[in-house]
Amino acid sequence: MLDTIAFDADDTLWHTETLYRRVERRLTEILASYGVAAGETLEVLHRIEVDNLAYFGYGIRGFLLSMIETATRVTGGAVRGADVQAIVDMGREMTGHPVALLEGVEETLAGLDGRRLMIITKGDVLDQESKIRRSGLAHFFPLVEILIDKTPAAYADLFARHAIDPGRFLMVGNSLRSDIVPILALGGYAVHVPYPDSWAHESEAELPEDRAHFFEIGSLRELAGVLEKIEATGRPA
Amino acid sequence: MLDTIAFDADDTLWHTETLYRRVERRLTEILASYGVAAGETLEVLHRIEVDNLAYFGYGIRGFLLSMIETATRVTGGAVRGADVQAIVDMGREMTGHPVALLEGVEETLAGLDGRRLMIITKGDVLDQESKIRRSGLAHFFPLVEILIDKTPAAYADLFARHAIDPGRFLMVGNSLRSDIVPILALGGYAVHVPYPDSWAHESEAELPEDRAHFFEIGSLRELAGVLEKIEATGRPA
Repeated sequence: MLDTIAFDADDTLWHTETLYRRVERRLTEILASYGVAAGETLEVLHRIEVDNLAYFGYGIRGFLLSMIETATRVTGGAVRGADVQAIVDMGREMTGHPVALLEGVEETLAGLDGRRLMIITKGDVLDQESKIRRSGLAHFFPLVEILIDKTPAAYADLFARHAIDPGRFLMVGNSLRSDIVPILALGGYAVHVPYPDSWAHESEAELPEDRAHFFEIGSLRELAGVLEKIEATGRPA
Repeated sequence: MLDTIAFDADDTLWHTETLYRRVERRLTEILASYGVAAGETLEVLHRIEVDNLAYFGYGIRGFLLSMIETATRVTGGAVRGADVQAIVDMGREMTGHPVALLEGVEETLAGLDGRRLMIITKGDVLDQESKIRRSGLAHFFPLVEILIDKTPAAYADLFARHAIDPGRFLMVGNSLRSDIVPILALGGYAVHVPYPDSWAHESEAELPEDRAHFFEIGSLRELAGVLEKIEATGRPA
C-alpha cells in the first residue's frame, strides 16, 4: 500500500546537531578569553543565525559566517585575526567530519528492500551531497531531493515531479515543522523520530487535530512495526 | 534539428564577475589600511579561493570565507573585528545585488520561442536560484539544472535524465572549460561567448582538433545566425 518511503537525513539518518553543538562549544571557549559568557555567545549566535538564513541559507558556510559575526559582535570588534582564522578552520574541519549514523539505520534500510526509498533533505546542496556520499548509504536511495526549504508547496511540487500519490507516501523525520506537518497537510503518512538535541527553531510546529496518519517512534528500529500497522489498516477487511 | 538550447548563466546571461571584482577591490582598500598592497591581497585571495573550492564550493559564501581568510593571512592576524564585519556585510549585500543582464539577452531568448530552453549553471544552488528569480528570465526556462561542477560525467548524466540526444543539443556559455569542451567531447554543439573579465581558472582548457561543432560569437545577438548555419548544414541536400 505504501510505495515510497522517504527519509529526512540530518538527525534522522545521521548525527548533525551534535557536531554543530560541539563547534558552538569551541566558539564559546574562544570568546570566553575576551570575557564573554557562554550563554551570551550562544544567544547572539542563534539570533544571528536566524537573521542570516535569508542571506546565507542553511549549512556549514552560513553557520560559519554567523559564528564570525557573533565573534565580532560580542567582543565589540576586539576579536583577534587568529581567532577569526580558528573559526574558519573549525568550519573547514566540519566539511570533512566523519558522518556518524544513528542507531539502527543500516539494518532498517536493508529491511525495507523492495520499496522505493528516497532522501528528502533540506539546506545546503554542497553539505548534503557530501554527507550522502560519506555516509555509505547512497546505494539505498535511488532518489535524493535536496530542497531549499521543506514547505508544503515544495513537497507538492516534488510529488508532482515524481508522480507520487500522497496516500501511498510515508515520510520519516525528526522535525515536526519540516518533515511531518507539511506531509500530513498533503494527505501523506508521517513518522516522527525525535532527536534529543534538535534546534529550537525546528520544533515550533503544531500537529493537526486529525492524527490518523501520524506516528511517533523512539528509534528507526520501530519503523517496520509502524509500516505493518498502516498497511494492516489500509487493507480491505 | 537542434531541439534543446542550453545556456550557462553567470557571465553568459547576466554579469557576475564584475560584482566579484568590485567587492575584491573594496577588500584591497580595506587591507591597504594595514599597509598591504592590492596585488598581494588579490594574489593571496585567488590562491585561497582555489584551495577552498573543495571545502566551501562555489558562490558568495565560499568567496566571503576566502576573503576573511585572506584578511587574517595578509595582516598576520592584525585585522580588526570591524573590518572582518565589513567583509561579511559586503557578502550579505552581494546576495541581494540587482542582477544585471548582458546585452541582447532578453531579445535573443524571446527570439528562440518554440525551442526547449534550459539553464545549465554551476555552483551554489542558493545563489543560482536567487539570481534566476531576480533576473526576470525564469519564464523562458522550463528546465534549470544547477550542477556542482560541469564535468563531462555531469553532463552525460543530465543528458540521460532528460533524454537529450547530444547531436541535437547546443550549449551557449562563456567558459571553454565548463561550457564548451565537455559538450564537444559528448558530441554536442557549443557556442562560446567570451566574457571580457573571466576568472583565469575558467579559461584553462584546450579545444579539440575537430571543431565542426564549435562556434564563437561576440554577443548573444549573433546566436540566431549560428543556429541558422548549423541547421542549414544538418539538413539533407
